[in-house]
Amino acid sequence: MNEKTIPDIVIGRLPRYLQALEHMLQQGCTVTSSKELGEKIGISAAQIRKDLSQYGEFGKQGKGYSVPFLVHKLQQILKVDRIWDMALIGAGNLGKAIAYYQGFIDHGFRVALIFDSDPQKVGQVINEIPVLHTSMMIETIQTHQIKIAMLTVPAQVAQSVTNQLIQAGVKAILNYAPITLTVPDDVHVQYIDPIIHLQRMTYYLD
Amino acid sequence: MNEKTIPDIVIGRLPRYLQALEHMLQQGCTVTSSKELGEKIGISAAQIRKDLSQYGEFGKQGKGYSVPFLVHKLQQILKVDRIWDMALIGAGNLGKAIAYYQGFIDHGFRVALIFDSDPQKVGQVINEIPVLHTSMMIETIQTHQIKIAMLTVPAQVAQSVTNQLIQAGVKAILNYAPITLTVPDDVHVQYIDPIIHLQRMTYYLD
Repeated sequence: MNEKTIPDIVIGRLPRYLQALEHMLQQGCTVTSSKELGEKIGISAAQIRKDLSQYGEFGKQGKGYSVPFLVHKLQQILKVDRIWDMALIGAGNLGKAIAYYQGFIDHGFRVALIFDSDPQKVGQVINEIPVLHTSMMIETIQTHQIKIAMLTVPAQVAQSVTNQLIQAGVKAILNYAPITLTVPDDVHVQYIDPIIHLQRMTYYLD
Repeated sequence: MNEKTIPDIVIGRLPRYLQALEHMLQQGCTVTSSKELGEKIGISAAQIRKDLSQYGEFGKQGKGYSVPFLVHKLQQILKVDRIWDMALIGAGNLGKAIAYYQGFIDHGFRVALIFDSDPQKVGQVINEIPVLHTSMMIETIQTHQIKIAMLTVPAQVAQSVTNQLIQAGVKAILNYAPITLTVPDDVHVQYIDPIIHLQRMTYYLD
């Protein structure tokens, strides 16, 4: 079937399944059930079975799922069975933490380029990657054919940097700046903003 | 009306409304409409009107919303019209970036305590806050009556640290460790994991 017809909300759950399954695999667990997986991540077994059934039959009734097979299959579906080079824009404290984060490379994401507009930061080397000036951003990203960018710039410049990234051919942006970005339909944006998450919890506190 | 009856999914949208409205206020915009707000954050005007109507009448038909009033009201609803002290567990690169992030204090969240289990990190001072050993975590959090914690520890210790936080009285955890935590019903957890967001986008890339 055409995978493009799978609803976005289903796609959104697949990385969570993959994360939990990879964790099981690390712990030496090779067989699981939708019930066990569901309990680990707080999603119903029925939902998991329904989601996975969109991609064909992964498990046998009553026999459970093969964890290595499901990990492999989900990596294929999500296209993370390869290495994705990424550009990081913003070499402040958060940018540096991202550049050093081992979790990216463990999951097939490599910070390949780092840019900043601050002359003090340009030329610094972070985790073996030299910080380039943002004036070189469009050309360098085009040359490296990079499709994914992470934004850790101040909110007030995030949209203008985004416009340049789109010009450079970037199709996916992970935005840490606390602002909603305007992008064309063929560009995907995901947001990481701790304030939003914290405010969602304080509502429930006394 | 009893605010506790508002569905969690509505609560989840309120911080995004607040973020956009605060941004408008910074730009000197004092009146808005559900249409304008919706266009900024990609949520339908009808949805916004419905969500806000749960809390009473904020705007007059055809007159739009007062931005300062709505900001104030949303801050009250989300209980961010005060300062929340937080404990940060994990003083690595990400923990440091968090401790220095100005956005927290700008939104009423203050990193008050920092803990790490690494003797090399204990005693360091990060943004004027001394790093304490995790062996002092339960007692210190109890003494300070802190209800919110941020976790930037490795995945393999995240659950055991969480168990201690719960023992200390923490009721809200912002978890940066790439693992789903098991907590009692009265403890809230939100997750920040860039891998999940990136994998959600690679699906759509060629």
